[in-house]
Amino acid sequence: MTRLTDLLSTLFERRYFSEPTKGRRPIEAMCHDLLTSRGDVSGMQLARMILDRFEALEDAGRLAFFQFLTRDMDVDPAAVAQAATEYGADRNKATYSALLRIAEAPRQELARRLNQVPGATARLVAMRTDLLRFAKDDPALLRTDQDFQHLFSSWFNRGFLVLRRINWDTPASVLERIIAYEAVHAIDSWDDLRRRLQPEDRRCYAFFHPAMPDDPLIFVEVALAKGIPGSIQAVLAEERAPVRATDADTAVFYSISNCQSGLAGISFGNSLIKQVVADLSRDLPHLKTFVTLSPIPGLGRWMDGQDDERITALRYAARQGDTKKLTAEADPLRAIAAHYLLEAKRDNGLPADPVARFHLNNGALVHEIHAMADTSANGLNASCGAMVNYLYDSNRIEENHEDFASTRKVVASKPVQALARTARTTGMTAAKAGDKTRTPSNA
Amino acid sequence: MTRLTDLLSTLFERRYFSEPTKGRRPIEAMCHDLLTSRGDVSGMQLARMILDRFEALEDAGRLAFFQFLTRDMDVDPAAVAQAATEYGADRNKATYSALLRIAEAPRQELARRLNQVPGATARLVAMRTDLLRFAKDDPALLRTDQDFQHLFSSWFNRGFLVLRRINWDTPASVLERIIAYEAVHAIDSWDDLRRRLQPEDRRCYAFFHPAMPDDPLIFVEVALAKGIPGSIQAVLAEERAPVRATDADTAVFYSISNCQSGLAGISFGNSLIKQVVADLSRDLPHLKTFVTLSPIPGLGRWMDGQDDERITALRYAARQGDTKKLTAEADPLRAIAAHYLLEAKRDNGLPADPVARFHLNNGALVHEIHAMADTSANGLNASCGAMVNYLYDSNRIEENHEDFASTRKVVASKPVQALARTARTTGMTAAKAGDKTRTPSNA
Amino acid sequence: MTRLTDLLSTLFERRYFSEPTKGRRPIEAMCHDLLTSRGDVSGMQLARMILDRFEALEDAGRLAFFQFLTRDMDVDPAAVAQAATEYGADRNKATYSALLRIAEAPRQELARRLNQVPGATARLVAMRTDLLRFAKDDPALLRTDQDFQHLFSSWFNRGFLVLRRINWDTPASVLERIIAYEAVHAIDSWDDLRRRLQPEDRRCYAFFHPAMPDDPLIFVEVALAKGIPGSIQAVLAEERAPVRATDADTAVFYSISNCQSGLAGISFGNSLIKQVVADLSRDLPHLKTFVTLSPIPGLGRWMDGQDDERITALRYAARQGDTKKLTAEADPLRAIAAHYLLEAKRDNGLPADPVARFHLNNGALVHEIHAMADTSANGLNASCGAMVNYLYDSNRIEENHEDFASTRKVVASKPVQALARTARTTGMTAAKAGDKTRTPSNA
Amino acid sequence: MTRLTDLLSTLFERRYFSEPTKGRRPIEAMCHDLLTSRGDVSGMQLARMILDRFEALEDAGRLAFFQFLTRDMDVDPAAVAQAATEYGADRNKATYSALLRIAEAPRQELARRLNQVPGATARLVAMRTDLLRFAKDDPALLRTDQDFQHLFSSWFNRGFLVLRRINWDTPASVLERIIAYEAVHAIDSWDDLRRRLQPEDRRCYAFFHPAMPDDPLIFVEVALAKGIPGSIQAVLAEERAPVRATDADTAVFYSISNCQSGLAGISFGNSLIKQVVADLSRDLPHLKTFVTLSPIPGLGRWMDGQDDERITALRYAARQGDTKKLTAEADPLRAIAAHYLLEAKRDNGLPADPVARFHLNNGALVHEIHAMADTSANGLNASCGAMVNYLYDSNRIEENHEDFASTRKVVASKPVQALARTARTTGMTAAKAGDKTRTPSNA
Repeated sequence: MTRLTDLLSTLFERRYFSEPTKGRRPIEAMCHDLLTSRGDVSGMQLARMILDRFEALEDAGRLAFFQFLTRDMDVDPAAVAQAATEYGADRNKATYSALLRIAEAPRQELARRLNQVPGATARLVAMRTDLLRFAKDDPALLRTDQDFQHLFSSWFNRGFLVLRRINWDTPASVLERIIAYEAVHAIDSWDDLRRRLQPEDRRCYAFFHPAMPDDPLIFVEVALAKGIPGSIQAVLAEERAPVRATDADTAVFYSISNCQSGLAGISFGNSLIKQVVADLSRDLPHLKTFVTLSPIPGLGRWMDGQDDERITALRYAARQGDTKKLTAEADPLRAIAAHYLLEAKRDNGLPADPVARFHLNNGALVHEIHAMADTSANGLNASCGAMVNYLYDSNRIEENHEDFASTRKVVASKPVQALARTARTTGMTAAKAGDKTRTPSNA
Repeated sequence: MTRLTDLLSTLFERRYFSEPTKGRRPIEAMCHDLLTSRGDVSGMQLARMILDRFEALEDAGRLAFFQFLTRDMDVDPAAVAQAATEYGADRNKATYSALLRIAEAPRQELARRLNQVPGATARLVAMRTDLLRFAKDDPALLRTDQDFQHLFSSWFNRGFLVLRRINWDTPASVLERIIAYEAVHAIDSWDDLRRRLQPEDRRCYAFFHPAMPDDPLIFVEVALAKGIPGSIQAVLAEERAPVRATDADTAVFYSISNCQSGLAGISFGNSLIKQVVADLSRDLPHLKTFVTLSPIPGLGRWMDGQDDERITALRYAARQGDTKKLTAEADPLRAIAAHYLLEAKRDNGLPADPVARFHLNNGALVHEIHAMADTSANGLNASCGAMVNYLYDSNRIEENHEDFASTRKVVASKPVQALARTARTTGMTAAKAGDKTRTPSNA
Repeated sequence: MTRLTDLLSTLFERRYFSEPTKGRRPIEAMCHDLLTSRGDVSGMQLARMILDRFEALEDAGRLAFFQFLTRDMDVDPAAVAQAATEYGADRNKATYSALLRIAEAPRQELARRLNQVPGATARLVAMRTDLLRFAKDDPALLRTDQDFQHLFSSWFNRGFLVLRRINWDTPASVLERIIAYEAVHAIDSWDDLRRRLQPEDRRCYAFFHPAMPDDPLIFVEVALAKGIPGSIQAVLAEERAPVRATDADTAVFYSISNCQSGLAGISFGNSLIKQVVADLSRDLPHLKTFVTLSPIPGLGRWMDGQDDERITALRYAARQGDTKKLTAEADPLRAIAAHYLLEAKRDNGLPADPVARFHLNNGALVHEIHAMADTSANGLNASCGAMVNYLYDSNRIEENHEDFASTRKVVASKPVQALARTARTTGMTAAKAGDKTRTPSNA
Repeated sequence: MTRLTDLLSTLFERRYFSEPTKGRRPIEAMCHDLLTSRGDVSGMQLARMILDRFEALEDAGRLAFFQFLTRDMDVDPAAVAQAATEYGADRNKATYSALLRIAEAPRQELARRLNQVPGATARLVAMRTDLLRFAKDDPALLRTDQDFQHLFSSWFNRGFLVLRRINWDTPASVLERIIAYEAVHAIDSWDDLRRRLQPEDRRCYAFFHPAMPDDPLIFVEVALAKGIPGSIQAVLAEERAPVRATDADTAVFYSISNCQSGLAGISFGNSLIKQVVADLSRDLPHLKTFVTLSPIPGLGRWMDGQDDERITALRYAARQGDTKKLTAEADPLRAIAAHYLLEAKRDNGLPADPVARFHLNNGALVHEIHAMADTSANGLNASCGAMVNYLYDSNRIEENHEDFASTRKVVASKPVQALARTARTTGMTAAKAGDKTRTPSNA
């Protein structure tokens, strides 16, 4: 902070707290002051003080602050109805302007004013992480969260995001966040990170927002390969020999991680994949196939709900780490996984598997299923070691997406369809699929 | 555009227009499509097509498009009133979410979706320039403008802006915009520009938005000086000897230009000046005085409305370029200008002069007035050559601003107050100041 | 300069000049001090003072300084002979080290020590510009110049140069140098510069040295085109419609300018062209032809030395600006130019034309000749308006270069060879070509 | 590599090897070709091939190559003597030019031509590392090394180096080199590195050469502190509380590491320290004291050569890790270390301790000595845990340096002088210091 800023700040604080009656002014009062300050001379100081004060609060204080936002910074429904009626009666600038102002909860304008402070955007995102935590126990707070989500959708609009390649020349301060945020296949060490970034057959891309230049929003890790791999351990093996980038025909998206819990509900993944496909196509024209190597996180839980003994035996083998059995039973397991991906649905008719929902909604299709593909403890536990390739085929992406969006049809390759049929014909999966495969939408 | 993007684009357009009934789909229908598209697979293509289509339209087409936004993408007042009532009856996430959605005109969401396209932000700002032009004849369009202004306030929040120094190492593509946008003292040539950027006693700073990295939003030109200068021609003289930056005690803000007519009503000037004062204070600790050298754009017109023959004679001399007379009558002219700045008001009680309103609202005070300070044709015509220094005194800025905001009191130095009294005591200005000095607020 | 540096500097200067006998120590003594200073504590201060002192000198002082370098900082031939003999008698580290030290003139080490100062490289380059100027009248100084040239060859080694694209986003401080340095087709104004940089069918590249980051060493201007152009005025026309970069099949190098007279004799042009060809080939794979559009600067003077009346008439027409005549006589003029380029030689057997020598030595060939190709006053005067395309054909470049280097054979396309024959068969050029076409090598 | 470069390369190699007699042309022949190639069309290809070939050689081949350089690319002493005599007889450009050329070994020009290849500078530096290794057994190679050293002194001139701050935002590819190159206090892990870079009281600076932008030449690690620390473990403690940078009054240089063994003999350390002192003084004006915390690497070995039983007992305690004893005997140990630093000399009269030689030659003085200051195994072994602060006092630096350079006087603070006296008066160190404290200069 500069000397003048210091000076201004000191003068301001002295002034602000000089009247004895003000004492240590409560944060709620400061918020009202910020909303009514006419110029922005003092606004930025005030905003900074509110953010500092909030971050110094314990949980109880933070909860109280969110409750204040929800209760005292809400819209006034009667006033909104009145303004709407007046606008309906005479649609002009003044009546519309009044409606716009009255129909927006004051907490939105408060957030915009807090955001004036340099660095505030990241602090407001962190504030929403807190809010979502408290809202689990106090659902009324979800009303305030609606406003956060509305604002963040506008601020983190695709047009404002910047795609940056992450590699071994990236600043360590960003790389340590990549290590921390990796949510699919944990990065053990800086050496592990280097193996994912430095070889010429590896790529990593992230979206950043200009107001949070060191903190990625989402990132994807890509392996360039000859052919489609069927094992994540093979992709990540320490001793593997890299492929020459110009020799590769396939780009494998093997990990996508959202970084900011405070941006839950703001979707970046589809844009990221599309942009990376476009960039890789331009840089490496030999690439023909764009495919994921994805976990099937809901498979294990779903299998636990089936009462077929072969399924139960597979789950048991996986829990025991009995890879011999899993190898021997690779085809039945693949059939079960195919059935799960194609037939298991939530109440709303969408696929039960969350990763499947994401890629299918993006326009990808279920291309192939592999057993013994993730033999880590986590992989065996979550899906008996099975993984799936979703294929991004630019000729079909648009059609797939529209079919999925309108009819919820899960598009799959012929081999995967055949696998799914096998599961049914061998009786491994319940005849009365209707009941058993449904899971509640909010699962 | 990459090959894959090309391909996607081609496929999309083929698909989009393949059904004969679609023909050349009207822009209005495309807007509805964009709002109802569920994924963003095709969204970005569609958004790009809408922007391209709009920009290819003639005025009539653009006007029709804005009328469509105003009429067909408006809120539904009855639905808003209904949603407000329902929310009032039961405040929960669902009712609030519904109210949020219904109370926002669909044109806002449309603008956000258009903004996904790379480079769209600048195109939407340009779109608003058009909108404001049409709104002069069709005030109903001002309702749509309210939405643009609301969105832009959020997007161009202070926290997202970047301050950058403009100097002779700045890319030519940015500098040519500085030349084009300078609105106060025109820049004649690249040589003139260099004289304002390269000497060590000159500074220039601009705010940029990350989504418009080559296009400044506002910029300020600063001269470092020993003492406060009283003539813009002296400041800009070709042959002057530069002051060493470390010897200067005064920073003179001699020109502030807003660059984007499409951002009218979004205020950046106050933040810019404050930030530049802070940065200069840090870099050059010898600087003690921060002051403007500002035009008095409303003075001439105001003088024309007075029926004092000495005033009329001064106006006549200025129009004739009779600098001898203006030099001889320097003090009376300064007194008149002081009186104008301190006493001439709009109906709402704010100062008649727009530049005065800006700086006084920022917390500056009227420090000194100079005759023969701008002897350009424009300066003589607008203000008989008079200019004014507004002083940014960090000890008083906050207090000045609050006084002005609450009581509309114009703070001035003692010498300027004395000057203004002279004007009254010598009878040059009307006794019944009440009538004569008022100008309509919308002047 | 920082405070500590200031302090060090002050202490040093005080100390350095404190002894009354030192008085204002002569620059020659300071040079000896610099060479004998054991550490570099004071070395950098001393080096800076020497450079400052030199630059404050008038011509007489500078000449004296160069004479001092030449006379007093020369090698000692007897000592060199002695050291060589000792090394011949016993080749070991000590004798070799002694020879290395003794055989190098002290002025080389002086220059290296001067170069420690930040920014010194450019100042030493400027110093050599002076030296070369004085050496015209005092050829003894050329011995000192040999040392400068030897050092600069090492410092400006190709491996240290950086190729940068110059475009409309380049800092103005660099662009103004491009304007100043353009030596072939003068750049009239910033608008003219923009027309050469901004359209998508224009490129400009320069070599920079890291120690002179704002000052180009050499640059080349390129036009992308469909087919090979035959008129520089057409290439530079204000109103022309740009070609889409991806549609172009030909890259035309229409201007190459060396920027630093102090780097005379250090050749960058060949590397620059090769590198730009490589970069353009990578970025725009449709480009098939790389060709220059070059002046024939020696043609006019050579024509003046011929006693053929048709040639005399063409020269007269060109001097009168009689473009009608020049158009009518296009083919004879082209034939004469072809003959000149292929047959007119210096005493050492190299082509008389300096631009021809440059491109032929690079491995290019004479591809086509155009009349009425440069109708500027300068073009008409220097070459009756004729210009030439040299072709860089990557299949033949190596062979051409070796042929030219070993046999001095001028490689030309069949049409140009035919043109040259025409000149001979129509008797326009002297039979006794041997005499008439020779010009002294030092012309 | 671009397509055109590929093509050129292929054509060149085909051509180069097409004649059956050429076969696989030996590297020595290629070097001769490179020296005689007239243009640089093929020069860069040839240079690249030579570097590639060298790097593919085993040790025997590399040794043979260096012997070839030493023997066959040497100067011709008789020719040098002849050229020197001719120059002595008639000093003109031609005779001087001939002498310059003949007196320089062809291997220097060879190295310059190899350096044309992008990235070659680092490869030549690595080549010298090899050369120095072989020269241990074959001292004749040191003649060739003289030429490398001469060239590198010119290429790595202070004026070409760039100082860059190393921090947690530095690319990982540079940071991993910092970890690898740290030669004084090993960096255990990325976490250890972060503790040295990220806290606000830590700084790290490195010199880079523009042709090796990712590879530091030398770096220094700095701790900001209140007062002068006396223990490296305290400085590097994991759990310490950082000092606010603006509160610090002392900058402690606690580690300086040269990175490139191939640049042995080219000194950067003095310039680096001076530059960092200057930069820190500017950025943090509160800093008053600039001091090292340095090892005393020669102390242990020197103590082993003394026949005083107290000294022997201290060595024994240190070897046993008996910190209790070392703590109890802190003062005698400090006295011994002071005596060693001030009195132990090499044959040439310079201090026996290499770190002392470096800092004293830079103009620093011996400020304080600490026992139990480096309790690592290495510290106890090398110096019984003692360390020393060398003080860089800008008021005395120049004088100290000159005194040291001319008289070899070791400047020390009064307390250190007193300590050294104690060692003598208590009889711990030999009376006949002359003999005992001398060590061979090449130790």
